[in-house]
Amino acid sequence: MTAHHSVPFARPSAETVAAVTLELQKRYGNRVVTSLAVREQHGHTLTWTANQPPDMVVWPETTEEVSEIVKVCAAHGMPIIPYGTGTSLEGHVNAPYGGVSVDTSRMNGLVAVHPEDLDCVVQPGMTRKTLNELLRDQGLFFPIDPGADASIGGMVSTRASGTNAVRYGTMKDNVVSLTAVLPSGEIVKTASRAKKSSAGYDLTRLLVGAEGTLGIITEITLKLYGIPEAISGGICPFPSVRAACDAAIMTIQTGIPIARVELADALQVKAFNLHAKLGLPETPMLFIEFHGSEESVKEQSTRFGEIADEFGGGPFEWTTKPEDRTKLWQARHDAYWSCFTLRPGAKTVATDVCVPLSRLADCVEETHRDIAETGIISPIVGHVGDGNFHLTPMVDIENPEEMRVIEEFLDRLVKRALAMEGTCTGEHGVGQKKMKYLELEHSAATLDTMRVIKRALDPQGIMNPGKIFRG
Amino acid sequence: MTAHHSVPFARPSAETVAAVTLELQKRYGNRVVTSLAVREQHGHTLTWTANQPPDMVVWPETTEEVSEIVKVCAAHGMPIIPYGTGTSLEGHVNAPYGGVSVDTSRMNGLVAVHPEDLDCVVQPGMTRKTLNELLRDQGLFFPIDPGADASIGGMVSTRASGTNAVRYGTMKDNVVSLTAVLPSGEIVKTASRAKKSSAGYDLTRLLVGAEGTLGIITEITLKLYGIPEAISGGICPFPSVRAACDAAIMTIQTGIPIARVELADALQVKAFNLHAKLGLPETPMLFIEFHGSEESVKEQSTRFGEIADEFGGGPFEWTTKPEDRTKLWQARHDAYWSCFTLRPGAKTVATDVCVPLSRLADCVEETHRDIAETGIISPIVGHVGDGNFHLTPMVDIENPEEMRVIEEFLDRLVKRALAMEGTCTGEHGVGQKKMKYLELEHSAATLDTMRVIKRALDPQGIMNPGKIFRG
Repeated sequence: MTAHHSVPFARPSAETVAAVTLELQKRYGNRVVTSLAVREQHGHTLTWTANQPPDMVVWPETTEEVSEIVKVCAAHGMPIIPYGTGTSLEGHVNAPYGGVSVDTSRMNGLVAVHPEDLDCVVQPGMTRKTLNELLRDQGLFFPIDPGADASIGGMVSTRASGTNAVRYGTMKDNVVSLTAVLPSGEIVKTASRAKKSSAGYDLTRLLVGAEGTLGIITEITLKLYGIPEAISGGICPFPSVRAACDAAIMTIQTGIPIARVELADALQVKAFNLHAKLGLPETPMLFIEFHGSEESVKEQSTRFGEIADEFGGGPFEWTTKPEDRTKLWQARHDAYWSCFTLRPGAKTVATDVCVPLSRLADCVEETHRDIAETGIISPIVGHVGDGNFHLTPMVDIENPEEMRVIEEFLDRLVKRALAMEGTCTGEHGVGQKKMKYLELEHSAATLDTMRVIKRALDPQGIMNPGKIFRG
Repeated sequence: MTAHHSVPFARPSAETVAAVTLELQKRYGNRVVTSLAVREQHGHTLTWTANQPPDMVVWPETTEEVSEIVKVCAAHGMPIIPYGTGTSLEGHVNAPYGGVSVDTSRMNGLVAVHPEDLDCVVQPGMTRKTLNELLRDQGLFFPIDPGADASIGGMVSTRASGTNAVRYGTMKDNVVSLTAVLPSGEIVKTASRAKKSSAGYDLTRLLVGAEGTLGIITEITLKLYGIPEAISGGICPFPSVRAACDAAIMTIQTGIPIARVELADALQVKAFNLHAKLGLPETPMLFIEFHGSEESVKEQSTRFGEIADEFGGGPFEWTTKPEDRTKLWQARHDAYWSCFTLRPGAKTVATDVCVPLSRLADCVEETHRDIAETGIISPIVGHVGDGNFHLTPMVDIENPEEMRVIEEFLDRLVKRALAMEGTCTGEHGVGQKKMKYLELEHSAATLDTMRVIKRALDPQGIMNPGKIFRG
């Protein structure tokens, strides 16, 4: 294997753009849009990045249409940017080289549900909340819950997770099979509907987390779970982040099958209070949930309360009442939005890192010291069961000095996580904004191996160029 | 992407073999062996296949030595066959083109255990039983348990699972990170020690299940679990395979976190009785295990007993006594060996398929009819929670007519599973013997995608040639 570098992609010429527009409009009529407003709406992710609009947006309705679109683009060397809901956080859907944004929002059907097999088949534009609404009557749910109401296709592509990962895993653990259109326009199905298989290379997991750089996901078979008979949940204050982390680790080591264990630091609790009027004491806090039978969630809750007490935390106030639990978890899921209450008018450059559990308290504490020294406003929430935490620095993006301070802070954050055997992103993905950190995380040989695969499957480099790998 | 076919590999010339032998002996002395006995011992897997010995066997002791060996072989176009314990079942370690068998049994160390992170780092030659013995004192265990005392490296490469997969997943779910030597000799580390990551392509999962065709695994970071406070287990007879499957599905749908649920058909129970003197009624049977707290395993066992009763099964006799449980599970793990009691002197061509849970009873029942019509002796055991089952047809390999009958039977079995949206192998892998079925399972485009990846990472085709893909 020789070292490869991605070809720096050239923006297609005006003639190419015109030719592709014409060809796609001929096929799909007003499902091809070139207005600036629509292009700009497709040109940035949820966190702050400069807008980079595509040349056009197209809304396919079938896998075959996606294949046709890709073939047209491939024939013209035109970049393709797969688009779900635009709620990712690292510039994944920006179009730095222009190209065709393939918006999957019309491919949002629930194709099949198989209750006995605990799986379902969905189109990529289906969002996670809609899916769970459609499944509820059958007593089933899909657990992966990034904050936003993301599309399942987007969640596949960023290898998303969320608050339930400690119990149910991430997207990598919950995708059974994928249908995808490759950069050649060919349609592949990666696996059968069997729960497990040893039949050849794991193309499913290769596409999960590939951020649309190896193909466009057009159908997904997902694992489902029975809605637990009982759910108990609550919050537990701790004297320090370390005490909260230690209690969480002890809980997991003891084998208590905790479903959710979320850390909020004191500043984040303040933001929750401002945003959702929760009236919580502004101290580090764990948000906890247990799933099981009535008896088992009672037992789990009691045992967690005892562990919290050992580490100086508590009281652990828990409930099995849905309305009380929902209010708490709504606040937790709104963490991103709540941060804006801390500095009205500011924007954010949200990010995440992930470290081994044993280093989580170290990493958060060092980051707190850094925040204090730097004087920025940056609440922290963490998926303690995974060692994954999020920062939401509130920033005036018009102020270059402030942006520089934040950039340097984020740089130290990633390096701190990597030094602790961690990763530059636990669940957001690389996108544009973490390309330089991917190079710090992996050796040249490892990164080259990824590039060799990219080059082999996408020799023209048309599939979501300018993401994951720097030119 | 253009269609690729693997280059039909040519056996290296006598001169090449002599040159490689000399070069490796110069470096590793008597850790290079060319005697026929040792070569033949490395030339076949556990199930019956014709012996295909490599040209030599080498025992490296470090990742760097593996890298050197691969570089020597690459320079001479010499095939490389990674070797663990030789307990795989589809001809994975046979050397159809000769070459160097790289035996990892001297690389069998436990490099590190991180109890707080619930992970450990092992070398590939470590076996699963030895690992669990070393972990026990720390209250930890590694759950994946194929029947044999396989090496962890081999388990990675076949994407192995076993009886605990319904609760703990398969190797794909339990490998955090890998170090591997690629066909170029380059060393890559696929991921950090963080529990999850969205940092680039999932090279970990690409190597898990690649059967040594993309590289040699030299170090593995594995997820661990706390040994449950309590374990209850037992057996439950059922009037039919269907009743047993339905009870298992209902248990899983209800959300009871069953740890093991294994089906044995009446003939398999007879084999257990002959082999281990269990004195069980010779009827379809589920072997069950629950993990949790004392209270929760009691509750789970009681609830399972009620479900079994609903489907005409029972009584469910369970115990938390380790010695009684161990006897039962030893019998289950010896399923392979017990089958030889049914036809002394015979050999077996063991195989597995996997279907969606809802089709398992259909698939087993149709296979039973086929067995009855064909008149062969073939017990069935199944991982009911995964839809995965094993056949162990006992056969006189000297009798060509009998071999033909078995081959045709296995052919019908795989086609039956594929027609039910299943896979040609749930956990054994493709090896040599299922290459033709991989072509039935996947479309040409999907198989081509796998071949493109193989070709990109191993342009000479030296890494375990003649496996997974036909020439």
